[in-house]
Amino acid sequence: MKNGLFDRFKPKESKFFPLLREMADVITEAASLIGDCVQASSHEEVVSIYKKIKEQEHKGDKIQNTIFTELNDTFITPFDREDIVSLAGTMDSVIDMINSSAKRIMLYSPKSLPESARVLALLLQDAASDIKSAINDLPNLKGKADSIRGACGHLNEIESKADDVYEHFLIDLFENEKDAIEVIKLKDILHEMERASDSAETVGKILKTIIIKYT
Amino acid sequence: MKNGLFDRFKPKESKFFPLLREMADVITEAASLIGDCVQASSHEEVVSIYKKIKEQEHKGDKIQNTIFTELNDTFITPFDREDIVSLAGTMDSVIDMINSSAKRIMLYSPKSLPESARVLALLLQDAASDIKSAINDLPNLKGKADSIRGACGHLNEIESKADDVYEHFLIDLFENEKDAIEVIKLKDILHEMERASDSAETVGKILKTIIIKYT
Amino acid sequence: MKNGLFDRFKPKESKFFPLLREMADVITEAASLIGDCVQASSHEEVVSIYKKIKEQEHKGDKIQNTIFTELNDTFITPFDREDIVSLAGTMDSVIDMINSSAKRIMLYSPKSLPESARVLALLLQDAASDIKSAINDLPNLKGKADSIRGACGHLNEIESKADDVYEHFLIDLFENEKDAIEVIKLKDILHEMERASDSAETVGKILKTIIIKYT
Repeated sequence: MKNGLFDRFKPKESKFFPLLREMADVITEAASLIGDCVQASSHEEVVSIYKKIKEQEHKGDKIQNTIFTELNDTFITPFDREDIVSLAGTMDSVIDMINSSAKRIMLYSPKSLPESARVLALLLQDAASDIKSAINDLPNLKGKADSIRGACGHLNEIESKADDVYEHFLIDLFENEKDAIEVIKLKDILHEMERASDSAETVGKILKTIIIKYT
Repeated sequence: MKNGLFDRFKPKESKFFPLLREMADVITEAASLIGDCVQASSHEEVVSIYKKIKEQEHKGDKIQNTIFTELNDTFITPFDREDIVSLAGTMDSVIDMINSSAKRIMLYSPKSLPESARVLALLLQDAASDIKSAINDLPNLKGKADSIRGACGHLNEIESKADDVYEHFLIDLFENEKDAIEVIKLKDILHEMERASDSAETVGKILKTIIIKYT
Repeated sequence: MKNGLFDRFKPKESKFFPLLREMADVITEAASLIGDCVQASSHEEVVSIYKKIKEQEHKGDKIQNTIFTELNDTFITPFDREDIVSLAGTMDSVIDMINSSAKRIMLYSPKSLPESARVLALLLQDAASDIKSAINDLPNLKGKADSIRGACGHLNEIESKADDVYEHFLIDLFENEKDAIEVIKLKDILHEMERASDSAETVGKILKTIIIKYT
């Protein structure tokens, strides 16, 4: 599986950018599917959407594995190895958390999902679009630093909005939901969606660190 | 924002110690405020104390960011970069968890908080004082190694006490609280306080590693 | 406590393998005890088994500390320091999570444990045996790469089975358990057991990375 020695000395930067872009596409697809999932009208529909999200999650794992194997086979990388590892790992976490949000919706079958779940799904779609734009700009780090910084700032705002949405949901839940089992279900589902937006913000933080280091 | 080349070669140690001391002050202030929070007599008071803790949390984030930026701009650091990163990161986690404990008290509005919450807050105040003392000793690592080791040992004992308090709280909760929603609320709040003391112990572990490496 | 200079240059590989093997033995013992714990017929029996698991957890912590101290004292290590750190740390996490699963059974005293808890305990015992076999093969990495890869593949299958067991448990729990406090207890206990199998899988992933790097 190893490349020839000559091959290993050639700059392999080009390999990592397309892989990270694929990862951003997977996040975008998963975020779009979780939007469908929170609006599904039947358990069957939830199950079928969850299966699609699960496929994206497998895809994300595969891309991450390819990135790690490439890192071990490549002498020259566009950024420090550890930066690529943490960027790919955190992008994969966003996908994992979207996946486990959908899984909880499927497994718990709550009576209904609150409007906040729909708002969180929309925020995740916004976050996906910022991650995609920042990753597209990454190969041209110096020329696009401002644009990447803008996307990172936006990811930070989205996380803060998601936080607010989750807080208001919790206040409302504890004030109005008297069925303790529904409380457990809904709190668990929306908490996972909120964590996905935290991870999206962390992607932004890692990108900002990369900008500081390399520009 | 970058320093001149000459400046970057100058030992910059002095920068990191004051920043870590500021971080220790933020932990101390947050721990004192969570003590007020668990004793607040009205929801309004909880809200007003939470706002003050939130300010400390922002302050902690800022200090951590400054430390990370300084690390990227400085050639000579007093310890390995990774040690400073993990020390600052874990100190920030202590603040984050105190903040989220207070946030949960505010959002959940439990009927009342058990005595264990007050004991945990006192233990966090003890932990803060040990962290502060160890961080003050840090610039004089060789001369003060025993004193730092003492503080780390104390942080370990505090964590173990916090663990006991949390365990007894849980046993009592499941034996006596029949309202499942109160169980959810109280378990979540005290668990977060107990995690804050775990992070304080981790600060001690990182300090002990630094002592082993550099003395 | 430091070794002489000459001593520090001598290959110390031999130190790490026996320590990792001891850690694998602790995992095996803890996994066997959690099997007893989920089948215990009285609270007294649970308490007595938990104490034994707690002893294993202390043993795991001690071994991990010894490994970290050795790493600081040794110039030549069989693998990258970071690989040894993450391998030992993740093996310790498996023990920690088995310990906290048992602790929850003891503290929560659920009315009864579902069959799924017994199945998860058996899966943890399988995982322990794969970890043990892979760690035994580690000193002969090149000759035993296929055997280690096999154990890692098995750890991955076990995690996937544990996931399925936990999912079916959750569906059943939310369909049939109407006592919300029992829901909280059982979900918390089995979730921790499932997380232990996740960590066992992570041990396998770290081992696979080591194989890629060094063969």
